[in-house]
Amino acid sequence: MADTPSGTSMWGGRFADSTDEFVQQFTASIPFDHRLAQQDIRGSIAHATMLAEVGVLSESDKDAILEGLARLAAKVEQNDIQWSVALEDVHMNLEYQLTQDIGDAGKRLHTARSRNDQVATDVRLWTRDHIDLALSEIKRLMQGCIELAEQHADVIMPGFTHLQTAQPVTFGHHVLAWFEMLYRDATRLQDCRRRLNQSPLGAAALAGSPYPINRHRTAELLGFDAPCANSLDAVSDRDFAIEFCSVAATCMVHLSRMSEELVIWTSAQFGFVNLPDRFCTGSSIMPQKKNPDVPELVRGKSGRALGNLNAMLMLMKSQPLAYNKDNQEDKEPLFDSVETLINSLRAFADMVPHITPNADQMRAAAMKGYATATDLADYLVRTGLPFREAHEVVGNAVAIAVKEGVDLSELSIETLQSIHSAIQPDVYDVLSLEGSVNSRDHFGGTAPNQVRQAAEAAKQRAAAL
Amino acid sequence: MADTPSGTSMWGGRFADSTDEFVQQFTASIPFDHRLAQQDIRGSIAHATMLAEVGVLSESDKDAILEGLARLAAKVEQNDIQWSVALEDVHMNLEYQLTQDIGDAGKRLHTARSRNDQVATDVRLWTRDHIDLALSEIKRLMQGCIELAEQHADVIMPGFTHLQTAQPVTFGHHVLAWFEMLYRDATRLQDCRRRLNQSPLGAAALAGSPYPINRHRTAELLGFDAPCANSLDAVSDRDFAIEFCSVAATCMVHLSRMSEELVIWTSAQFGFVNLPDRFCTGSSIMPQKKNPDVPELVRGKSGRALGNLNAMLMLMKSQPLAYNKDNQEDKEPLFDSVETLINSLRAFADMVPHITPNADQMRAAAMKGYATATDLADYLVRTGLPFREAHEVVGNAVAIAVKEGVDLSELSIETLQSIHSAIQPDVYDVLSLEGSVNSRDHFGGTAPNQVRQAAEAAKQRAAAL
Amino acid sequence: MADTPSGTSMWGGRFADSTDEFVQQFTASIPFDHRLAQQDIRGSIAHATMLAEVGVLSESDKDAILEGLARLAAKVEQNDIQWSVALEDVHMNLEYQLTQDIGDAGKRLHTARSRNDQVATDVRLWTRDHIDLALSEIKRLMQGCIELAEQHADVIMPGFTHLQTAQPVTFGHHVLAWFEMLYRDATRLQDCRRRLNQSPLGAAALAGSPYPINRHRTAELLGFDAPCANSLDAVSDRDFAIEFCSVAATCMVHLSRMSEELVIWTSAQFGFVNLPDRFCTGSSIMPQKKNPDVPELVRGKSGRALGNLNAMLMLMKSQPLAYNKDNQEDKEPLFDSVETLINSLRAFADMVPHITPNADQMRAAAMKGYATATDLADYLVRTGLPFREAHEVVGNAVAIAVKEGVDLSELSIETLQSIHSAIQPDVYDVLSLEGSVNSRDHFGGTAPNQVRQAAEAAKQRAAAL
Amino acid sequence: MADTPSGTSMWGGRFADSTDEFVQQFTASIPFDHRLAQQDIRGSIAHATMLAEVGVLSESDKDAILEGLARLAAKVEQNDIQWSVALEDVHMNLEYQLTQDIGDAGKRLHTARSRNDQVATDVRLWTRDHIDLALSEIKRLMQGCIELAEQHADVIMPGFTHLQTAQPVTFGHHVLAWFEMLYRDATRLQDCRRRLNQSPLGAAALAGSPYPINRHRTAELLGFDAPCANSLDAVSDRDFAIEFCSVAATCMVHLSRMSEELVIWTSAQFGFVNLPDRFCTGSSIMPQKKNPDVPELVRGKSGRALGNLNAMLMLMKSQPLAYNKDNQEDKEPLFDSVETLINSLRAFADMVPHITPNADQMRAAAMKGYATATDLADYLVRTGLPFREAHEVVGNAVAIAVKEGVDLSELSIETLQSIHSAIQPDVYDVLSLEGSVNSRDHFGGTAPNQVRQAAEAAKQRAAAL
Repeated sequence: MADTPSGTSMWGGRFADSTDEFVQQFTASIPFDHRLAQQDIRGSIAHATMLAEVGVLSESDKDAILEGLARLAAKVEQNDIQWSVALEDVHMNLEYQLTQDIGDAGKRLHTARSRNDQVATDVRLWTRDHIDLALSEIKRLMQGCIELAEQHADVIMPGFTHLQTAQPVTFGHHVLAWFEMLYRDATRLQDCRRRLNQSPLGAAALAGSPYPINRHRTAELLGFDAPCANSLDAVSDRDFAIEFCSVAATCMVHLSRMSEELVIWTSAQFGFVNLPDRFCTGSSIMPQKKNPDVPELVRGKSGRALGNLNAMLMLMKSQPLAYNKDNQEDKEPLFDSVETLINSLRAFADMVPHITPNADQMRAAAMKGYATATDLADYLVRTGLPFREAHEVVGNAVAIAVKEGVDLSELSIETLQSIHSAIQPDVYDVLSLEGSVNSRDHFGGTAPNQVRQAAEAAKQRAAAL
Repeated sequence: MADTPSGTSMWGGRFADSTDEFVQQFTASIPFDHRLAQQDIRGSIAHATMLAEVGVLSESDKDAILEGLARLAAKVEQNDIQWSVALEDVHMNLEYQLTQDIGDAGKRLHTARSRNDQVATDVRLWTRDHIDLALSEIKRLMQGCIELAEQHADVIMPGFTHLQTAQPVTFGHHVLAWFEMLYRDATRLQDCRRRLNQSPLGAAALAGSPYPINRHRTAELLGFDAPCANSLDAVSDRDFAIEFCSVAATCMVHLSRMSEELVIWTSAQFGFVNLPDRFCTGSSIMPQKKNPDVPELVRGKSGRALGNLNAMLMLMKSQPLAYNKDNQEDKEPLFDSVETLINSLRAFADMVPHITPNADQMRAAAMKGYATATDLADYLVRTGLPFREAHEVVGNAVAIAVKEGVDLSELSIETLQSIHSAIQPDVYDVLSLEGSVNSRDHFGGTAPNQVRQAAEAAKQRAAAL
Repeated sequence: MADTPSGTSMWGGRFADSTDEFVQQFTASIPFDHRLAQQDIRGSIAHATMLAEVGVLSESDKDAILEGLARLAAKVEQNDIQWSVALEDVHMNLEYQLTQDIGDAGKRLHTARSRNDQVATDVRLWTRDHIDLALSEIKRLMQGCIELAEQHADVIMPGFTHLQTAQPVTFGHHVLAWFEMLYRDATRLQDCRRRLNQSPLGAAALAGSPYPINRHRTAELLGFDAPCANSLDAVSDRDFAIEFCSVAATCMVHLSRMSEELVIWTSAQFGFVNLPDRFCTGSSIMPQKKNPDVPELVRGKSGRALGNLNAMLMLMKSQPLAYNKDNQEDKEPLFDSVETLINSLRAFADMVPHITPNADQMRAAAMKGYATATDLADYLVRTGLPFREAHEVVGNAVAIAVKEGVDLSELSIETLQSIHSAIQPDVYDVLSLEGSVNSRDHFGGTAPNQVRQAAEAAKQRAAAL
Repeated sequence: MADTPSGTSMWGGRFADSTDEFVQQFTASIPFDHRLAQQDIRGSIAHATMLAEVGVLSESDKDAILEGLARLAAKVEQNDIQWSVALEDVHMNLEYQLTQDIGDAGKRLHTARSRNDQVATDVRLWTRDHIDLALSEIKRLMQGCIELAEQHADVIMPGFTHLQTAQPVTFGHHVLAWFEMLYRDATRLQDCRRRLNQSPLGAAALAGSPYPINRHRTAELLGFDAPCANSLDAVSDRDFAIEFCSVAATCMVHLSRMSEELVIWTSAQFGFVNLPDRFCTGSSIMPQKKNPDVPELVRGKSGRALGNLNAMLMLMKSQPLAYNKDNQEDKEPLFDSVETLINSLRAFADMVPHITPNADQMRAAAMKGYATATDLADYLVRTGLPFREAHEVVGNAVAIAVKEGVDLSELSIETLQSIHSAIQPDVYDVLSLEGSVNSRDHFGGTAPNQVRQAAEAAKQRAAAL
């Protein structure tokens, strides 16, 4: 932060005592809200344009302002601004810079506007920009899932419930379950974007402005769908930030689930997949280690996403209308959730297409663990047994196989028939992995045939987002 | 809970050792999931109907099942079921009851289904039913806000920022700010409903079913828009519960803000509004007390709404696919958030239309606190001063008024002109409360004229939901 | 809940309008606070005893009250009370019952007391009772860990970082890491107990009482260390509930970590341990399943523990002093955290001593994964290489072993010497699992010798709690 | 961040593929963990000293290391280090710098140590240092409360429950309620400090070290009470960070309650206290505003404190032992909670002693609102009425006073006697504010006499911390 310009307080008129220096630093938002600079300038351009159109600002003042703002935007772009803590926030800093550049016209820019509607506008624009970035990364990741699923639509692995082998599934089917989570996240991002896309500008401090402003015009200039319908709400509402943080937390929880699977699958014991070296790191003490750092870190980052959501909801609890200083605390959690989400999606979008399944290892694992026991039960049901009885019969068969240390398909036909007389030699068909997965051939099922259709449909759904 | 039927375990075949009694109670979900009984029965009706249509179930078995389920639904309705902890959950309890009633046909109902897709279906149906209830209560509350706003569209009160008098606003305008929060909540409830409205049925345990099931048919019978597209996702997804809890937490935070205002406004010091006695309680020790219990309690209940959201997100963090026992923990937070939201909305919908503003007290408060200082600044801007200079001039005027202990409108014209020579006697027009509010006459502004238009628009927006 | 006694409102004097029926239910706490009944009675016994001692209550009134309270305690014990929603809470219900029994003397019991100090006292007593239960269960679990560790002090397993094989450790050493977490939890429970153990009684509504009460005497009678030092704080403080919920959430996170390990270790792929059947359940569709339900459920319950902590902190945020109705919301999260913690500890204390390690499986796993690579590096350091260079040399050795598909101990001496000339045949000693673990023979290290000493020390530390 | 030194990876031996550039940035911790630099150096000094003592490091190597570390500490102090993202973290950066300076001896420093025990040690040292700072600020604030309470021990204000006037209290009594909250926070900070004060050093990666290290010696050199008792726990435990975040969240909730009161009390409607201008700010649009920014901002910061606590607990949920990359995420929430707590305490410690109560305004408020109604009830009890009947009588009296628009003390003796015949003219004594507060003259009561004693006791308790 730069040294503070002296005598520049924007509101000192009625104060006998100047602000305590520590208080000035403690209450300043410029250390983090300078990230809103480009959005603040865009808001000012729209505001000045409208003010001139309705006759509140002269053409020459407007021209000076727009030219000054263009110069300012370039300086921000080039990281060529000294932010001052004494000027509190990005709005005051930019206005000060503008006025230094163009003189009195700069002081007219704040007509019919307050920092309350200004910051609300800036944060909405900034969030909207970053939702678009997040959408682009999540679509890239969804695309990666589809590709991976198509490549491995008939690779068989054990499907788990309770992390115990349950039934054989295809790797492509599993990866498309990831797609479904992400697809919902993408629609939630879109809903959030739609709901935030209203313009607070013109709400002024809280009550609106006595100038003949045109709020629809500034909304239009800034790409908003409409102005916010109530000025008190416009300056006090932070729902869009809460909603973003909630969507981000949910998506990060999804990534934590994918991460957990990747960590487990890359363990020596599972050995189901390989991750490229470039997404892993080693150990400073154990030379043999190849650690799945990216999944682990993303899993851990679900914590901060939850934290930020809590920070936002706690912040807004019990706040009376309209603006309170508390609201300054909305930015850091929002910024952090945005950055966490975008970076985590980016890392996954880079990594997921390069996951390599170890088909042999997966197949061997599926062969163990009695993954086709349900298929045996369903076989018995088809011979006329009620499901509940078939289930019990198979339970006994598994107990015998456990005792003998073999898989169900390795039990002799005699043994199987001693368990239930309806069992015939064709039973070995349903006890095979391919037989099992191919039989689940309905919408949403794990049969390779369904996986390919689901991947095709996923492409179209992603494209239609 | 009833005594446990003996020998009824649905999965005991391979177990040498029976479940520990405390473990049985600890892991049972029937103490809370019996609330899903009607939804479970509706799901079973759809499942049996479809199974018969595709030929997996005989017509006679189907008929027996549907008749048995109808009797069971009536018993549930009359609270005439003994739930058994030994039968673990609502699904096993109902199937046991059904089989007791109709015999072997009951055992065939579980064909091509698992508790994993069954519970996912039940919870979605239950949540959908309750979203509809919540929407009905929130609309009633929104209607109450509109009525209150229309009645008091030109009652003037001080608008606050930082809980300091900022500018005069109308009470109707303030109440419509509440409407805006609730309107967003209602659209979020709708988005949540739309996203959850897909059928997990047919996903079976995790991989789908080898029977020739028709998932689109059961989806249709249950009023779902479509079947879930991936069976692994269908049984492991709890997004809809997270999303509901998030929407509920946000709405409860809104109610906490309204509550905070009602608590402050009913304090002896503010005295801005009265609440009907029937929404308040007294003190066991202080006979004079009339406490705003309903707003206080609702404000407090924002805590549990946040808690439930956290419980859900923490629960799902790092869970590998597909179903894990952890997921049983999804119900109580969801049920509690649903109940908390619906009851809080109901209490507010009952109370809000009966809030009585004390117009005199509000007016007196707005007269103090220099609420029209900004109007004076804007007056000066219209004489040609840049806003920033006008702001400083008025700051000095306020300092003088504070010292003299009077309002700005009580300063003499001489005093005002000594502060700035551009001030003329017509300044007293803009220093009046009516002048101030009427001047904010643009879309979203506080002018009574705008409030009435906004209320009219609100009616249409609420009707279009 | 029973029908409501008519005309029994304890504070109706100044109210024109009776409470709305839904509001009555919505604001009543009796559905959950009846759990405080015994604590409420103990508080009343102490209060009445003290009032008689200081002369505010006659001996005969006191005797009638104490006898009535004894009868009431017995009825509560036998679950023989009809709780009434019209009487709002447990305090009013019990006072009503007492007065029905003993007449006017019952009405004198509330002298010099308010529900505000009464409920604060009840909740502290209840929490203290349950902290003692939690301490007893956690000690039992700690004891189970020690036993398990002693039994398997020299069973070797792979130690993990990043869920990748890192270095060999002993199973007993791993289990004692659990002990350490629990030991800290136990000390936190004790700190919480110590801090809560002060008596709010006598704070009355908020300001204290005009009667000549003896607060030290009631504190003593109730086993508190002292009376709370400030009456406003006494009725508004809920720190002890927050602190308990925080301690419970931390302990539940510890149990979630142990659970995660048990779930991973019981997977077919790891197969490191067996859990007794009685802590597992089966599947309604997959007959072969044996699911680690207890660890999974406990892992999931970490969610509600976090939720309750959040509910409490959110609840207290921004509450002005002294008592507000919001505080009624403190009970359900606290009760739920207490129950969750005690039951989870109980389930683990029952289960942990019966965990059976599969020593062969663990050993085989430790043999793979280059677990002794660090030992090779340390061997090289002892020959004079700086650690960083030794690390790099071993990295190359691992790369060769990976390529050859063998363990480090299976590389020939020629190959090893080709990597670094300082390697001698004695290198195979340090590459063995026993050599590795035995070499870490310092305080806190994994050598069996250290594990046995640590277990001994743990016994003494647990006993000293 | 500086450009990355090339070829410096500390673990690249077995990797075929170099880390992706974005992944390198995404996984690097140096952007935030460089704050641990001084603690890392202190840890290295202790480690090197011990290694030399036990003969693992030569005296000359040790001397070179200690001299190099001293130079490095000076460079860190002067902010004269270029941190490199390629070197991942503070440990690698400092080791690289040291080795650049002193050559091969630097490479020997990492003997018998891993980044896992190193970072655990650094974070504990850093947290301990900052707990000490927090304790110093909280003690300063507690002192400020005591001073303020002593100055205004007999200033009467209305005491509130439900933000409704309840009973008169003294301002000093209210401020001492703040002291009590803070006192508990201080003891929690101390408990946290005591529990964290154990040394992870020597745990190495997870299993301990094969070198003859002396963990008690490094613990002693670093001011720890003892070494951690289990190496796996030592590297995986983050309880101390959770516990700090929990203590901080609780303290921030306390500050939010004080803040809420200050915001309400400085409103125009209450006008109970003045804050010095230097803790307030103005408005960019409303020239009259003086906003209580510091209390508002601190109230808002309770949100981030809650968020950080959640981030930590979510992070640790379900992590298997020992170290996982997830743990890197522990630092930012911890750092932020530390900074938030210390700065908020500092701002309050600066501000609180300068709060000025408006005694007249408070007294006038206490005169209204029937604050002495309970005193009238107690008066009636002393004439022989049971409390419950007295309560009802006073309820009627209040209803009459409300109707007449007067205070209880303004009702005529005839009116009062018509309500209950036992009332005598001496009733006006108990209806006075001074009579009311002076009568609550027991330990913890609001009588000025008690407030002075409590302040005296508070001084001693604070000094004994």
